[in-house]
Amino acid sequence: MANHSYAILGTGAIGGFYGGKLQKAGFEVHFLLNRDYEYVKENGLIVESVDGDFTLEKVNAYNDVAQMPRCDVVMVALKTTQNHLLPQLLPPLLKKKSIIVLLQNGLGAEEAVAKFVKHQPILGGLCFVCSNKIGPGHIRHLDYGTITLAEYSPKGEAAGNTNNMRLVGADLEQAEISIIRHEDLLLARWKKLVWNVPYNGLSVVLNAKTNQIMANKHTRRLAEDLMQEVVAGAAACDRIITEEFVEKMLDHTEKMKPYITSMKLDYDRRNALEVEAIFGNPLHMAKLVGVDLPRMWMLYQQLKFLDVQNRG
Amino acid sequence: MANHSYAILGTGAIGGFYGGKLQKAGFEVHFLLNRDYEYVKENGLIVESVDGDFTLEKVNAYNDVAQMPRCDVVMVALKTTQNHLLPQLLPPLLKKKSIIVLLQNGLGAEEAVAKFVKHQPILGGLCFVCSNKIGPGHIRHLDYGTITLAEYSPKGEAAGNTNNMRLVGADLEQAEISIIRHEDLLLARWKKLVWNVPYNGLSVVLNAKTNQIMANKHTRRLAEDLMQEVVAGAAACDRIITEEFVEKMLDHTEKMKPYITSMKLDYDRRNALEVEAIFGNPLHMAKLVGVDLPRMWMLYQQLKFLDVQNRG
Repeated sequence: MANHSYAILGTGAIGGFYGGKLQKAGFEVHFLLNRDYEYVKENGLIVESVDGDFTLEKVNAYNDVAQMPRCDVVMVALKTTQNHLLPQLLPPLLKKKSIIVLLQNGLGAEEAVAKFVKHQPILGGLCFVCSNKIGPGHIRHLDYGTITLAEYSPKGEAAGNTNNMRLVGADLEQAEISIIRHEDLLLARWKKLVWNVPYNGLSVVLNAKTNQIMANKHTRRLAEDLMQEVVAGAAACDRIITEEFVEKMLDHTEKMKPYITSMKLDYDRRNALEVEAIFGNPLHMAKLVGVDLPRMWMLYQQLKFLDVQNRG
Repeated sequence: MANHSYAILGTGAIGGFYGGKLQKAGFEVHFLLNRDYEYVKENGLIVESVDGDFTLEKVNAYNDVAQMPRCDVVMVALKTTQNHLLPQLLPPLLKKKSIIVLLQNGLGAEEAVAKFVKHQPILGGLCFVCSNKIGPGHIRHLDYGTITLAEYSPKGEAAGNTNNMRLVGADLEQAEISIIRHEDLLLARWKKLVWNVPYNGLSVVLNAKTNQIMANKHTRRLAEDLMQEVVAGAAACDRIITEEFVEKMLDHTEKMKPYITSMKLDYDRRNALEVEAIFGNPLHMAKLVGVDLPRMWMLYQQLKFLDVQNRG
């Protein structure tokens, strides 16, 4: 299968790590870069990883999709705040049977891509990974790494365990990337929000790490209240998330090492926050069926304010 | 009427300003101080005021209630975060017919005092004033100044326009303090919360002045949503606050000069925040009758976290 070619849009913590592993495993990989283009074209990529460090002295680096070849698989590893660029970036890279994989947070990205990509399948790839870009072409992978793959279905129902998921999944496993195949993309994305909504949001608003949120009885309770609202939002989309899952997220976070969320890292770097993907889109989806999630709305409103102030 | 004697508990922005005006008008005033005791005993009080500056070269200063005489009126101008001290501070100052006036924020202080003061009447004094202590014995009064007076009634109903309110009100007017007499203390306190809940809370959580909260469409909406929850809380206590009042608060705040709330000043000085008086007590009052106010709870939980982190 190593004959599949890969395009990686966005060569940061996510794209650099997973794209790097694919190239290391022998796949043909083409990396789109922005600020780091010159550096990476010259020097390649360094991946420091708990699974073993490696260096790619030479990579196919681009700063313009028009220069890139069409690929069998196109992986989008941009922040969702860049998704307004996808109608320009994606089409030049697509073959008739390319598979698109969105390695992104939150809800709504697959729907948005499906509006201008009519024929190619779209997968969601939910990354449970702790990885940072610490310099140009320099990735540090600290923990975890599993990608949950699920296929988008235009009618919103579960697509099942599809052939496209098997194709991409086999490649990823060949590159020593652990994967989980999920039959229902929407459920998988709502389940990830159970964690992302409280901790990403509160970490920014309260300037706090996960352990601080959990150590205070008021914010621990608030985190749980927010999780329950996410469960209610999922239920509004006919997706059932169990009490046990919520308990597991709370327990897991309590036992985890102190963690700075990705939204807090973006905030501290004065980058745009993924407020619409993680908050706005789920809120609108729930509202469409008449379900109000007041705490999540309030967190959305607070983050919209802080995001503007922070970059203003 | 200038023969009434006054005890002022807490000689800061509120107590120093109003107590100073009473002494200036000829009343016998006794000031309880803490940190500034030595300085004020030696140097008196300076009040810089938009209504005219004045200096009191000599004041009756104390750092121990046991040294103070019993007074006709006892005004409590401490922050509500100090109210656990009142069972020790108040009784030694009371005559059989003393009137107690609580110049404090939020809800619940009169109820708490009524638990250990059985025979003397208790008034609430709601201060609409912009005043700061800028140094030991040095008060700067910037704007406004009206006190809304209303009498506490143990059964929670409106006490009406009482004789005690007339007595104290006449003294205050003699001291050139503008007053409003309100027949219903609980309604007056809930109405003040319509402003205090959104702006005090959000100014701390979002590190923002009132104008910034109003200029962003998301937080302006959030401020309004929070006001509506306060209106719902008041309704749960059988107190009606009209839509026009909410509109007026929003309009007024929009037109106001950029303002740093008292809770934000406390936060920046690393003082304890009045979270229980302004948030906790109203929330519990509403909860007792089964009314849930989710945004206000969330703000309470966020403030409880920030208050501890800020002083920890």
